[in-house]
Amino acid sequence: MSSFPVTERSRIRRLHERGTHDEAAVHAVLDAAPLCHVGYVIDGEAYVTPTIHWREGNRVYWHGSAASRFLRKVAGQRVCLTVSLMDGYVMARSAFNHSVNYRSAMVFGRAHVVTDPDETAAALHRFVEDMFPGRWDDLRAMTAQELKATSVLWLDIEEASVKHRAAPPGDPEDAGHPVWAGVLPITTTLGAAEPAPGPHHDLPLPEALADLIASGRLR
Amino acid sequence: MSSFPVTERSRIRRLHERGTHDEAAVHAVLDAAPLCHVGYVIDGEAYVTPTIHWREGNRVYWHGSAASRFLRKVAGQRVCLTVSLMDGYVMARSAFNHSVNYRSAMVFGRAHVVTDPDETAAALHRFVEDMFPGRWDDLRAMTAQELKATSVLWLDIEEASVKHRAAPPGDPEDAGHPVWAGVLPITTTLGAAEPAPGPHHDLPLPEALADLIASGRLR
Repeated sequence: MSSFPVTERSRIRRLHERGTHDEAAVHAVLDAAPLCHVGYVIDGEAYVTPTIHWREGNRVYWHGSAASRFLRKVAGQRVCLTVSLMDGYVMARSAFNHSVNYRSAMVFGRAHVVTDPDETAAALHRFVEDMFPGRWDDLRAMTAQELKATSVLWLDIEEASVKHRAAPPGDPEDAGHPVWAGVLPITTTLGAAEPAPGPHHDLPLPEALADLIASGRLR
Repeated sequence: MSSFPVTERSRIRRLHERGTHDEAAVHAVLDAAPLCHVGYVIDGEAYVTPTIHWREGNRVYWHGSAASRFLRKVAGQRVCLTVSLMDGYVMARSAFNHSVNYRSAMVFGRAHVVTDPDETAAALHRFVEDMFPGRWDDLRAMTAQELKATSVLWLDIEEASVKHRAAPPGDPEDAGHPVWAGVLPITTTLGAAEPAPGPHHDLPLPEALADLIASGRLR
């Protein structure tokens, strides 16, 4: 795995910022959320597109329609891929000290399209298995046409920043002010599975999906 | 309120995409989440910074430290502000038809800094009250120094796209394939409030915060 510099670039809030210069910390934030926002430039202007990412070592992948304007435009371009998780509202005794508990990683690298169909298929396999262990083999097999219609992109992380805040309000100097202060934790979870209609609507939920729901995590 | 064109620009998934050409739909997505991702260009490269936004009519605001590189760089620049909410994993019978239920809005406009201190104070007041009704008056008052250290930015939406998917798997043709299919709903909620230590740690939680937690929404 190649090394990359971790720099201070992102800011969520003016205070209580913590930059951890650690590749493992960058990877941990990438792995904690399925959703990222990819920033790219078209004709000098910024665009930010949400997508689902996955990671293997220092390489981050995402995918979409081979016909997508987004995917065609970012190929070959250096992009910024940001993952952010809000963990809580930090309610201080002053407006100024209100904050957010969060984790955020910004990674930079050049976007490439996987050109070999076997590699595309292998990457999609790893994507599904990463999200939902054991699912791939249970699915109706992918067709050649579906594979052709799907582009997988990747970047190797060349530079990154990671930040987090996980603390109560940072305003002990105002502790005498009589207002409720503390943290309202934010939790994102999977709820009860909703089976689709069809002849197999009464199949039991696969154990891996039940485990994922029970884990309280999204991936 | 000025009108803006709503175009098809963002893509989360290759299938099942829905573009609704409606300013109210754009505003509803902006209002549903506190977190946005702002894309901007520095030296020809894209950056994506997470921040908290708020909206008044067709104007979207965010804020940060007056010393922030991000805020200084975006001032005067046309930026892309994207808000995305994941509402569920859509588990189809094939990998190709797996999808996400989501809401997403991309808005484009030129970023401006509020220069008048009274306007900055008024905007921050509306921000806090928008998030936490009734809280501003209970807080320790903002100082002139705190106000000076805080920049408020805004953009008027010039162009936007909004998309959402809210449906079971879209693969009835594969319904005969014997694999569990359906939706795993994703929910983001506020948990039990965690009071901060201090002489007033036993103050009751303000009713507005209790209501917000009970609402199952983040704002």
